Amino acid sequence: MNLDAAMAAALEQAEKVKGTTYPNPPVGAVILDAHGEIAGVGATEPPGGPHAEVLALRRAGERAAGGTAVVTLEPCNHVGRTPPCVDALLAAGVANVAFAVADPNPVAAGGAARLAASGVHVTPGVCADAVAGGPLREWLHKQRTGMPHVTWKFATSVDGRSAAADGSSQWITSEAARADVHRRRAAADAIVVGTGTVFVDDPALTARRPDGTLAAQQPLRVVVGMREISPDATVLNDDSRTMVIRTRDPREVIQALSDRTDVLVEGGPTLAGAFLRAGVIDRILAYVAPILLGGPISAVDDVGVLSIAQAQRWRFDRTIPLGPDVLLSMIPA
Amino acid sequence: MNLDAAMAAALEQAEKVKGTTYPNPPVGAVILDAHGEIAGVGATEPPGGPHAEVLALRRAGERAAGGTAVVTLEPCNHVGRTPPCVDALLAAGVANVAFAVADPNPVAAGGAARLAASGVHVTPGVCADAVAGGPLREWLHKQRTGMPHVTWKFATSVDGRSAAADGSSQWITSEAARADVHRRRAAADAIVVGTGTVFVDDPALTARRPDGTLAAQQPLRVVVGMREISPDATVLNDDSRTMVIRTRDPREVIQALSDRTDVLVEGGPTLAGAFLRAGVIDRILAYVAPILLGGPISAVDDVGVLSIAQAQRWRFDRTIPLGPDVLLSMIPA
Repeated sequence: MNLDAAMAAALEQAEKVKGTTYPNPPVGAVILDAHGEIAGVGATEPPGGPHAEVLALRRAGERAAGGTAVVTLEPCNHVGRTPPCVDALLAAGVANVAFAVADPNPVAAGGAARLAASGVHVTPGVCADAVAGGPLREWLHKQRTGMPHVTWKFATSVDGRSAAADGSSQWITSEAARADVHRRRAAADAIVVGTGTVFVDDPALTARRPDGTLAAQQPLRVVVGMREISPDATVLNDDSRTMVIRTRDPREVIQALSDRTDVLVEGGPTLAGAFLRAGVIDRILAYVAPILLGGPISAVDDVGVLSIAQAQRWRFDRTIPLGPDVLLSMIPA
Repeated sequence: MNLDAAMAAALEQAEKVKGTTYPNPPVGAVILDAHGEIAGVGATEPPGGPHAEVLALRRAGERAAGGTAVVTLEPCNHVGRTPPCVDALLAAGVANVAFAVADPNPVAAGGAARLAASGVHVTPGVCADAVAGGPLREWLHKQRTGMPHVTWKFATSVDGRSAAADGSSQWITSEAARADVHRRRAAADAIVVGTGTVFVDDPALTARRPDGTLAAQQPLRVVVGMREISPDATVLNDDSRTMVIRTRDPREVIQALSDRTDVLVEGGPTLAGAFLRAGVIDRILAYVAPILLGGPISAVDDVGVLSIAQAQRWRFDRTIPLGPDVLLSMIPA
């Protein structure tokens, strides 16, 4: 197996643990034996548990000797709650280490240099874009800015509507698209909606599996706005915790969530417009259904743009088919 | 070269002559010699000129003997303005004929049967979906229904707007997307807009090359509506012919264009809504830019849908990146 294929397997491992590793990054690792065969895989356990490399090495056992460790993030070189991964890799006798993204954390960094100094052949930057734009995107943002990464998600008809003229919107997108949303909710630290969405849709804002049961991991539910919501609102049920923030200012919301890494904004047109105008959105996920609705209810109303020269310009970074729908992912241009 | 790769080359030939072959279908052909190497390619010439197979055979010369003809449409078996292609294939001594789509025209059909009866190995259905949904789509529709195939094309921000709040819309999409529109205009028989678009944008509605010069082939320009347009409107200039149809009924427009095959509707929200409500659109091309505009100007207003249960449901058949934009192609679900 070549390095790219092994990194794809490591990336898949990382995706599986997204949302469960805070404050550690969700990392995936694959150990190839000396013949290039997969000998072990691993992904970061919840805080206090072993890192991805250590788990993968454990599973590989003696086959790791002379082999290759393929990791989504540069192996760490510091003693936290667990010993440095670099020590474990050296002890196992791997001959090569490949990783995607260098560790931006000055305390944990230096792993690659120490491995190289110990005679291990080190290959940095393998599939770096896929990993940095994928499972590590939110964590890297947090490391760089100190603030959570904010994703605005919306479901829309191809003509930009979030509901039909009479307000009905269940469902615009397919089961496949909704399942993807629930996976992302389970991986997020917080979901933000406005009081308007609570009044109109009374959503549970939980992460559910395709069979309707609650996912093991539930994000914090955050309701934003000046209006009082009903104590009977579903969002206040016991399925997860809920925070009510009495403000209209998106910056105050982000500040209140500054200990989080991955925030998902699912609000309606008013909340989404406020966040977009404030410039606090780091990624947009548009779940586009191949349907036409027309009428007055748009997915977003006022984004602070009067003329085409002022358009909010983004960049499509991924286009993902989801059943009959397509997910257009956008990041700042 | 295998049959799929050869058919892809034949399909590319067919795409090049789209719009120039009326009333004949735009067909592409590739001749592989006995070793499987490309010996000749061809595409349908304008009416009266040779068909694709004949041109490809001419270019292949003696290398066609014992080889394989790969054609997007079943070779014809009737004497029209040119002799049957089946005769040419038999005379050249090809051992195999592969085609994508059977000829639905009862007069021209029967080519495959005659070839097989003459000892040629015939393989139908190679890449049939790509050809039937690609260069032959409009011609097949015309053969089946007797009416032109109607495509509605629109440029939109990802939030469904066709202009900013102040009406400015140049440009929502990129040069790459606009170049694609001009290629499709050059291949179309007619472009339809409403009088509203003529008043607001005063478009030329010509097919232009990337350098701004006029394409060799220009579609008929069709202006629809009850309002009188100015004699100075650019759409009336000498770059192509123009038809003004004084009606608001999309069915009357299609009827007036019933001798055409490939009609492109480029109207604004009002015209597009009328065509969609009338159910006369056979394909939608959404050129989606990764920008947000917000505001009151949607790409389409009223499509006759009040509740989500009545949504116009389509199917994405192609998702094509065009520079920074993405083209979402939809056909009826």
